[in-house]
Amino acid sequence: MVRLDSQAPNFAADFARLLTAKREIAEDVDEAVRGIIADVVARGDAALVEFTRRFDRLGPDFFADALRITEAEIDAAVAACPAEALEALRLAAERIEAFHAQQKPHDHRATDALGVTAGWRWTALESVGLYVPGGTASYPSSVLMNAVPARVAGVPRIVMVVPTPDNTLNPLVLAAARLSGVHEVYRVGGAQAVAALAYGTASIAPVAKIVGPGNAWVAAAKRRVFGQVGIDMIAGPSEVLILADGHANPDWIAADLLAQAEHDTAAQAVLITDSVELAEAAETAVERALTTLPRAEIARASWRDYGAIIRVRNFDEAVPLVDRLAPEHLEIETQDAEALASKVRNAGAIFLGSHTPEAIGDYVGGPNHVLPTARSARFSSGLGVLDFMKRTTILACTPESLRALGPAAITLGRSEGLEGHARSVAIRLNL
Amino acid sequence: MVRLDSQAPNFAADFARLLTAKREIAEDVDEAVRGIIADVVARGDAALVEFTRRFDRLGPDFFADALRITEAEIDAAVAACPAEALEALRLAAERIEAFHAQQKPHDHRATDALGVTAGWRWTALESVGLYVPGGTASYPSSVLMNAVPARVAGVPRIVMVVPTPDNTLNPLVLAAARLSGVHEVYRVGGAQAVAALAYGTASIAPVAKIVGPGNAWVAAAKRRVFGQVGIDMIAGPSEVLILADGHANPDWIAADLLAQAEHDTAAQAVLITDSVELAEAAETAVERALTTLPRAEIARASWRDYGAIIRVRNFDEAVPLVDRLAPEHLEIETQDAEALASKVRNAGAIFLGSHTPEAIGDYVGGPNHVLPTARSARFSSGLGVLDFMKRTTILACTPESLRALGPAAITLGRSEGLEGHARSVAIRLNL
Repeated sequence: MVRLDSQAPNFAADFARLLTAKREIAEDVDEAVRGIIADVVARGDAALVEFTRRFDRLGPDFFADALRITEAEIDAAVAACPAEALEALRLAAERIEAFHAQQKPHDHRATDALGVTAGWRWTALESVGLYVPGGTASYPSSVLMNAVPARVAGVPRIVMVVPTPDNTLNPLVLAAARLSGVHEVYRVGGAQAVAALAYGTASIAPVAKIVGPGNAWVAAAKRRVFGQVGIDMIAGPSEVLILADGHANPDWIAADLLAQAEHDTAAQAVLITDSVELAEAAETAVERALTTLPRAEIARASWRDYGAIIRVRNFDEAVPLVDRLAPEHLEIETQDAEALASKVRNAGAIFLGSHTPEAIGDYVGGPNHVLPTARSARFSSGLGVLDFMKRTTILACTPESLRALGPAAITLGRSEGLEGHARSVAIRLNL
Repeated sequence: MVRLDSQAPNFAADFARLLTAKREIAEDVDEAVRGIIADVVARGDAALVEFTRRFDRLGPDFFADALRITEAEIDAAVAACPAEALEALRLAAERIEAFHAQQKPHDHRATDALGVTAGWRWTALESVGLYVPGGTASYPSSVLMNAVPARVAGVPRIVMVVPTPDNTLNPLVLAAARLSGVHEVYRVGGAQAVAALAYGTASIAPVAKIVGPGNAWVAAAKRRVFGQVGIDMIAGPSEVLILADGHANPDWIAADLLAQAEHDTAAQAVLITDSVELAEAAETAVERALTTLPRAEIARASWRDYGAIIRVRNFDEAVPLVDRLAPEHLEIETQDAEALASKVRNAGAIFLGSHTPEAIGDYVGGPNHVLPTARSARFSSGLGVLDFMKRTTILACTPESLRALGPAAITLGRSEGLEGHARSVAIRLNL
């Protein structure tokens, strides 16, 4: 963990180092992934079954007819879920749906003084594939966060793929799929699942876009199939930046830092404060909380390698630091949280006030928890309904408005050396 | 050119072939591009100057202090433009600005029954880089289409890069930069320009996102720097699909097909009609128009290799074909154009009625001409104001609403094995 002070002579260099610290070692699986995709394209289900037998150890009795997880299997999974967890998941789904319903965009058309009608119309994607990791990173909350906005957008076909290594699958993941309106679920993962979603096989019809988190193989496969289908962002390790003043409770701050750090040894938790006392108390509180945290080993490594406490003279000094870090999650626990938030340009999501721990946003707040990481909040947004829709612009000229606009189009077409463009206008004006 | 008939026994296979025809041979420049980027990262301006001297033949007198195109040079370029072209460009800029101003998104916040406030806020990107090709593909209209939406979004720093091979540059390109509010212009192109925009050099500060068309080197460089910065889509060859019935004027249809075909030998122009007479008349009209078109050689190759006329029994039959082709540009010249348009899901832009040739949309219609190609209208939209903004979600709980929601978040955190998440909520509720 580093302690920085904006007044220290070497602060600029130290902060720059924090900013550019590489938290991910990209596994070079690109060549292997290229081969897997080519094999799925060439041999379809046969390749899918082979890879699934091998990577997920499903044995020689596994055939293509078992790729699809049936409604009966999903029923059984739902029945196997603890009632309390199921109820919490239902509350989360309702709140995520209510929030995202407010994101549905409006169509628009207007006719200008010349008589030209111009506007746009939004339509849902025809189909979407949702990748869900298997094993310990298989989070039912992420199923909701990816599938619910697709349903709100009106996507008529939502397909989920999830590997079942050694035939294990978290029943809550299937319950989340059911709750969020997923139409088809397949027990397949890795680059082979991404290839099937992009190109289709006899068992799995192709989709228009693939979303959802995954390991290095999945990320490499998504990059490769981009263009054939759409993809969402490639997620990196999670981050939180907390702005807190001397009024904040150091134990609460420490809990929030560790809630981030426990995700992954490459996660990053940073505190910026104007209070020496809070800086010291929070550091102590982190150490204390670590002694009883189940995932202490992971959290400790993240805090040690990437954690930071930055002391500033005042929060105006903090704003440009926030914008450069462009954190995925920004908690503001200061007296003037709202005013301070309004000065920030770059953040994936902002959590206002001391009663809004980031973990509320992970589950039941309503806003999406799929957010831009690794400083990409400088140029991108969290997942939302618009990611499952696309906009078609519309233009309609009358004979009169074409007469008014045509000459300028003809001039520009000719000035760009595109006489055919000019003629397609001129022929309608007898020019 | 292929002639297809939806009633022919082999139609499905023929249409599938049309759909999957590879119109681009991807030049494999990835390794070279990787080297150029690494060199610019390592040596900054020195590398930029070397590559520019070599690739644009600017000679040994070219140094880093000449990278920036000065305001005086832009003044001189504007003065050198033909008045008529400048006036047309000004009209285009005004119309593009008026259209895109309607796309500015609204912030939103609502407080629910529990007392949770949730919403979002849109902010402009802090900086954007616009790539403009040099030579014959240097289109002033594209400068407007990329830069005006960035200005409307409120981007405070819009940077343009454009190569000046042999020291030539279309003065209208600089005029378009001036008209659309570009803040900085640099005479540099290729992968080296993309690297400079992404990583910065002493002369060119880095940007948050890079947009604009380019050759294979530029496309490969954009793919490589994605993540470090945002990028727009990778544009492929242009396409038009025209739906026209027996009332359409075959010479107008032919002019529109050729306006597309003249772009590039890899462009694609397709006509779908329910009229045998129009199909035949349009084909004849294309041949006739080709005899006098300046870019006939290019247009003829495109029409020969990728053109198609598809006959259908009725336009209901055409709708699924349109959605599978997902054309960049869709012209509808039928009696019921509006009703037919409403049935289509996948298209980049729709041009309604016989007085709306696609070329009007290229220049002065108002909507953007940067549109999804190569069937990517299935999952993406044309360029717009949202591409230069990003959304930050906001969440604020009161002590009471945290008490209401907290238990569900604790349950979900524990069910996902993330005890630290659960504790960050529980500690605030004394649980």
